[in-house]
Amino acid sequence: MIKVLQEKLDFVKKTLHDAESYEHACRVLNFDQETICPAEGMEEQGEVRAFLSNKAFELYKQPEFIADTEYLYQHKEELEDPLDRILADNLHREYLKTKNITPKMDHEFALIYNKAFVNWVNAKQKSDYTLFAPALEKVRDIELKKIALRENSLPGTYDNLLDDYERGMTADALDKIFDACKKRLVPLLKKITESKKKIRTDFMTRPVTDEQQKQMAQYLLETTGFDFKRGSFTTTEHPFTDGLGCNDVRVTTHYYQNMFSSSMFSIIHECGHALFEMHQPKEDWEHYINGEKTMGMHESVSRFYENRIGRSKAFINLIYNKTKQIFPEVMHDVSSQELYEALNVVRPSLVRTEADEFTYTLHIIIRYELEKLIVSGKVTIGDLPGLWNETYEKYLGIRPQNDKEGILQDVHWSSGFGYFPTYALGNMYNAMYYDTMSRDFDIEQAVLNGDFSKINGWMKEHVWKNANRETPKEWLLEITGRDFSAEPYLDYLEKKYTALYDIGK
Amino acid sequence: MIKVLQEKLDFVKKTLHDAESYEHACRVLNFDQETICPAEGMEEQGEVRAFLSNKAFELYKQPEFIADTEYLYQHKEELEDPLDRILADNLHREYLKTKNITPKMDHEFALIYNKAFVNWVNAKQKSDYTLFAPALEKVRDIELKKIALRENSLPGTYDNLLDDYERGMTADALDKIFDACKKRLVPLLKKITESKKKIRTDFMTRPVTDEQQKQMAQYLLETTGFDFKRGSFTTTEHPFTDGLGCNDVRVTTHYYQNMFSSSMFSIIHECGHALFEMHQPKEDWEHYINGEKTMGMHESVSRFYENRIGRSKAFINLIYNKTKQIFPEVMHDVSSQELYEALNVVRPSLVRTEADEFTYTLHIIIRYELEKLIVSGKVTIGDLPGLWNETYEKYLGIRPQNDKEGILQDVHWSSGFGYFPTYALGNMYNAMYYDTMSRDFDIEQAVLNGDFSKINGWMKEHVWKNANRETPKEWLLEITGRDFSAEPYLDYLEKKYTALYDIGK
Repeated sequence: MIKVLQEKLDFVKKTLHDAESYEHACRVLNFDQETICPAEGMEEQGEVRAFLSNKAFELYKQPEFIADTEYLYQHKEELEDPLDRILADNLHREYLKTKNITPKMDHEFALIYNKAFVNWVNAKQKSDYTLFAPALEKVRDIELKKIALRENSLPGTYDNLLDDYERGMTADALDKIFDACKKRLVPLLKKITESKKKIRTDFMTRPVTDEQQKQMAQYLLETTGFDFKRGSFTTTEHPFTDGLGCNDVRVTTHYYQNMFSSSMFSIIHECGHALFEMHQPKEDWEHYINGEKTMGMHESVSRFYENRIGRSKAFINLIYNKTKQIFPEVMHDVSSQELYEALNVVRPSLVRTEADEFTYTLHIIIRYELEKLIVSGKVTIGDLPGLWNETYEKYLGIRPQNDKEGILQDVHWSSGFGYFPTYALGNMYNAMYYDTMSRDFDIEQAVLNGDFSKINGWMKEHVWKNANRETPKEWLLEITGRDFSAEPYLDYLEKKYTALYDIGK
Repeated sequence: MIKVLQEKLDFVKKTLHDAESYEHACRVLNFDQETICPAEGMEEQGEVRAFLSNKAFELYKQPEFIADTEYLYQHKEELEDPLDRILADNLHREYLKTKNITPKMDHEFALIYNKAFVNWVNAKQKSDYTLFAPALEKVRDIELKKIALRENSLPGTYDNLLDDYERGMTADALDKIFDACKKRLVPLLKKITESKKKIRTDFMTRPVTDEQQKQMAQYLLETTGFDFKRGSFTTTEHPFTDGLGCNDVRVTTHYYQNMFSSSMFSIIHECGHALFEMHQPKEDWEHYINGEKTMGMHESVSRFYENRIGRSKAFINLIYNKTKQIFPEVMHDVSSQELYEALNVVRPSLVRTEADEFTYTLHIIIRYELEKLIVSGKVTIGDLPGLWNETYEKYLGIRPQNDKEGILQDVHWSSGFGYFPTYALGNMYNAMYYDTMSRDFDIEQAVLNGDFSKINGWMKEHVWKNANRETPKEWLLEITGRDFSAEPYLDYLEKKYTALYDIGK
């Protein structure tokens, strides 16, 4: 490699190292705000976070950095390390995206997002959308403004937001995917709700203590292979995973006294995200490309553990005795089969994070359709609570009674739009690679044996390894040898739920 | 005020605002490391913290900033706001202290302290001093190097370290104070240990759950006036208070299954620190002088709540019913008087943080004497465990059986020397202002009534208000009208413990 190229690469990496230091700090501050920061300390801490985020942004905006990254991009083929070539591509794309955003604007944006988060917390506590609406309006405006300022913007406004989370995905493609879902799921849902099958659920609301749920979370994390030397867990209102550093991945859950399963499946879901991050190649961090995997990829893994594994008969058999031991008051008269059925009962509900596996996609479609409307300007921010409630009634046949269980339930919109569809895509991706994995070994038997090193080993080898290095399309093709399709997911749902509900072919 | 002075003041304050943003982030990162950061994430996070700390340091080292702060100092009398005059003094003092330390050196120092902390955690877990000793040696070396580099260093090496935590205090003065303590406390301790008084302590080791202790901590924080909107609490190995921001003060405690009182008095102690920070004038933050209060002042307040209030008969009466309610298994056969006596039992022990009020000062004297030896170079780092154990035997008549309960028990030395004496000074300061307060109202009656707004109101008006604006000497004189003396503290101990142990005059 010629000396000038090496020098420019070194300078770019040194700058990225410093920017990563600021961003690492921002992630810690964000985690702190979500977990333990007191209410009145939020604003000052948000200002500090915006300050640091802006420092990173300033580094990216240095003329020398821009010139060097563009030089790397133009001489990409001369870079010896393929990861450096990926880096050069990413930096070029990011450069075009943010070229017209000044550090001052970036700082203003950060303050707006922070304020929106703080207002959302407060609004949700008080179940009062009017306390969030003005901030949400500002979020929408800056989302649109940022798209308008992109040098490499896509023709469809919403496609730009989507592309940020799921590179290559478009609203046109999603419309088709979601139409296919509706076409197969809606008739099947009708059969399910008309089924005579009785599923016992009385024990699902029996009270448990936080301490019991904490023990269960600890057990589930250990069982599925969470590395406590490189990770930790705590509680938050809305469970999440935060990869703060190469050796620092945090998961959170929440404890509901009368819904012991909520925390269990939150923790398995988040553990999936965490396992993904914990098994990323160290070189991806060293080449500053670890953030490149898409949200759909991430959700595919979390939902793989939560649903494909976690809600399977084999997994329920594996953990059954432990559930009896930790929750004796709940489980004393419950069989493994009853637990399996109750954890898979299909019942339209208001809160996405508590939705069953079957109706989950409908929750996503509702948000997707609303997001497209918000971004298109066809509705006002004030219209949203009504629209939300109407759409819930239309798709799920139920209507929220207040803002907290309706429009305010999710944190996501305080930081923008375009994320939700990735949740649904994740289910579809993992259905494809579950089929591939099942050709290599008997997954159910591995789960029954508690042999997560086998499962995680396969995931590392096939699913996790190249996630930062490929687009979702390339990645799926490499893992499965097939192009993306929603059908394996819909096949899986049909098979599982016709069996569970004794629905004749 | 002339325009040029105003401009320089504005620039200095803008710079301090940015530096404070970095430092605020460092405090959050530090809190995170102490509470939830996983073991293998510590190092990378420590590097981020060192990076940010260095950014703040770079700001202080800018030639323009230095020139302007020196200009402010030289034109101090022209500054209209007295808080700006204090700021000018502080900046000048700090400038002289760090003039010869480059950002690069500062960064190296930060990495050394961080590594020492990480090593200490590991060494304590494994009870193996050899895992900490090399890092401790480096800490000692940079502590000495930093003193050698000061432009305003004091003649006595140890006095420089002391002065950082307790402005104006010297080893000569401390030697006299501690000699006075020994002179009055040692004969009294002999009488106490020879006393026939039987104090019942069997119930003190009865097991309790973490959940019960958490409830008790919550109750104690609420009772003493902790503001949960501006503060939060969690658990750590070593309890501490962290004033992260103007509206963000955190306290921590630990839960020992067989020592319910440990968490209780840790939390009252830390709550004292927190109340102090929560009641600082907002202008002190705005003028960047909030960090000026000394550690002795801070410890005086935490120990005021922990010992003068918390271990008083009146306070035990106040909380007695609640202890029975939260810890029924412990308290079912214990009277309020028995609880009071058990919480004040005098018994030489190995662990400072669990020491009784009476012998506490001896733990400090041990550390003080060792620190002076370390800094003087009269002993090697390798000599310390042996010396520690010998000194414990000499002063307290007991000998640690391992490094964890001996030399490794405290975190403090991973960040330097000179802090410990402030713990003892705090007891002496609060004895002086307790006497002053008791002339204004009946403190015991206020405690019995749970009227902490009265106590905290007095503290705010007299003790907390000017803590950032005066030296300890000035501050004590203003509060009490008297010069500093250890006698009120020794009088208090003598009165309390001769009564408790039925010792004749």
